[in-house]
Amino acid sequence: MQSVHLENGVVTVRDVPVPARPSGYALIRLRHAGICSTDLHLQRGYYGFAGTPGHEFVGEVVECDSPEWKGQAVVGEINLACGTCGVCRRALGRHCPDRTVLGIVKHPGAFAEYLTLPEVNLHRVPEGVPQHLAVFVEPIAAACEILDQVSIWRGVKVAVLGDGKLGLLIAQVLQLNGAQVHLYGRHPEKMRLVEALGVLGKETGNTVPAASYPFVVEATGSSAGLERAVAMTRTRGTLIMKSTVHDRISIDTAPIIVNELTLVGSRCGRFEPALELLAGGKLILEPLIQHRFALSDAPQAFARAAQPGVCKVLFDN
Amino acid sequence: MQSVHLENGVVTVRDVPVPARPSGYALIRLRHAGICSTDLHLQRGYYGFAGTPGHEFVGEVVECDSPEWKGQAVVGEINLACGTCGVCRRALGRHCPDRTVLGIVKHPGAFAEYLTLPEVNLHRVPEGVPQHLAVFVEPIAAACEILDQVSIWRGVKVAVLGDGKLGLLIAQVLQLNGAQVHLYGRHPEKMRLVEALGVLGKETGNTVPAASYPFVVEATGSSAGLERAVAMTRTRGTLIMKSTVHDRISIDTAPIIVNELTLVGSRCGRFEPALELLAGGKLILEPLIQHRFALSDAPQAFARAAQPGVCKVLFDN
Repeated sequence: MQSVHLENGVVTVRDVPVPARPSGYALIRLRHAGICSTDLHLQRGYYGFAGTPGHEFVGEVVECDSPEWKGQAVVGEINLACGTCGVCRRALGRHCPDRTVLGIVKHPGAFAEYLTLPEVNLHRVPEGVPQHLAVFVEPIAAACEILDQVSIWRGVKVAVLGDGKLGLLIAQVLQLNGAQVHLYGRHPEKMRLVEALGVLGKETGNTVPAASYPFVVEATGSSAGLERAVAMTRTRGTLIMKSTVHDRISIDTAPIIVNELTLVGSRCGRFEPALELLAGGKLILEPLIQHRFALSDAPQAFARAAQPGVCKVLFDN
Repeated sequence: MQSVHLENGVVTVRDVPVPARPSGYALIRLRHAGICSTDLHLQRGYYGFAGTPGHEFVGEVVECDSPEWKGQAVVGEINLACGTCGVCRRALGRHCPDRTVLGIVKHPGAFAEYLTLPEVNLHRVPEGVPQHLAVFVEPIAAACEILDQVSIWRGVKVAVLGDGKLGLLIAQVLQLNGAQVHLYGRHPEKMRLVEALGVLGKETGNTVPAASYPFVVEATGSSAGLERAVAMTRTRGTLIMKSTVHDRISIDTAPIIVNELTLVGSRCGRFEPALELLAGGKLILEPLIQHRFALSDAPQAFARAAQPGVCKVLFDN
């Protein structure tokens, strides 16, 4: 089968055997996959990654233990937990210290004609959802994770910093949840895509409104974003940290303490609320897709996705 | 009257007029005052401070509007709020953007024979409490603030980093509140002072137990403390930030996001729970006092307080 290989920053397409399917796992034929910022970070050497990347996908189950999955269109949670350690027993499998992660840590990813995942990780694509849009379930779940962690009341002003792929999804999820989102970004044409939902796009200038927002979401992906987000959070407000930045950050922590801010690190989320939102059909997703490629054109697809301001790039299979 | 003056790092004692008492304020004759790390930071140039420092005090009301305060032994909340702005209306006067702060921001401090404070800031020293120990109310309140912000369950292990003045009080307050405190510090002789309460002192080495504690309090006062505290906090755990450090901090924020930690900035607290604890008589305070000076010896008192490992230095008047 065709499989994308990433090593030392170079993207190639290889012909490899279809992966063996362990007991309890499903063998999934890929339909669509999305390139995420994490994939671009992997290409830049994050985690010393070498292998098949890809964790945003929709596919069809072709082999499995439980007959009810056979032939189903599925998406899959990306963390493969041990299921038995103390963290897993706290129902935090996404944080299992022995976890592997689809296309990120020690489990071959979705940029291949076939992939495997445990059946317990699978979710059916809801009826009526165009299959290729289901690649957004994983990042929508990461946006929904904020709602699992923080109680954001209806009508409250929330600043979302960053108009990249994740920022655009977070802005939509929070707006649809009843907040008034102010989206701060540098690409007015991208922010306009989500304004139909009531999100207010605000072009980021050199100054930011000081101590103005009870909730701020930092999703810039840049090391300068956190200090800016701290400055925008009002006294006793909450700042949700979404950017995994791979440089050390230099920051003045005094305003965090003096203004008694709460900072909440936020990563992957449950798929259930994301699938519900996707099925609701209100999210603006189609315009976020800028390019679609065959797996065989993976080098071009990665190059395109890495260009500044480019939003979602998909693989179709 | 005698008044301590701090300017450009130099401590002097001046003879100045007794301060005028505005309406609604009390004129207070100083009995005892404590030198806090903040006072030492002011000496080093934090806030560009020039004036009379001191915010931990106990005194006697000698003039006031309301007759019930006259002759009372009092302590006082240090933030002087405007009382009318949006923040004050949210009952967050300690965060009022127009506040002045006793001995820190635009209100002469307590290291003087007399000081003034609004009557609304005053609290009576509870019966039976040795007056000089009431200087600890303000830092005990800062320790109690953690309990107002974070729900710490009984029996849970909490790591407190830093065996300075504030760390020793935080360790006691949390232990008396039912937690099992592990106090990490570099001064075994100081940690031993609070072990009678059940606090376990742990000498800080070069390695720290990774991702071990559901709650970690960072009170080292050093810029290296935060990253160490992050490393010790377990997945989905809470890290309380108590050190106002005056350098920029360099930190890898990835573990905060990947492990979904919550960081809570924490500053001053309400006096009520601190007075209750003080009246309870269980806190170990007397051994924390290492030196007592007259106001006229303020230069020596500041020099002593600034020596490494020195705990509480008091003024008596």
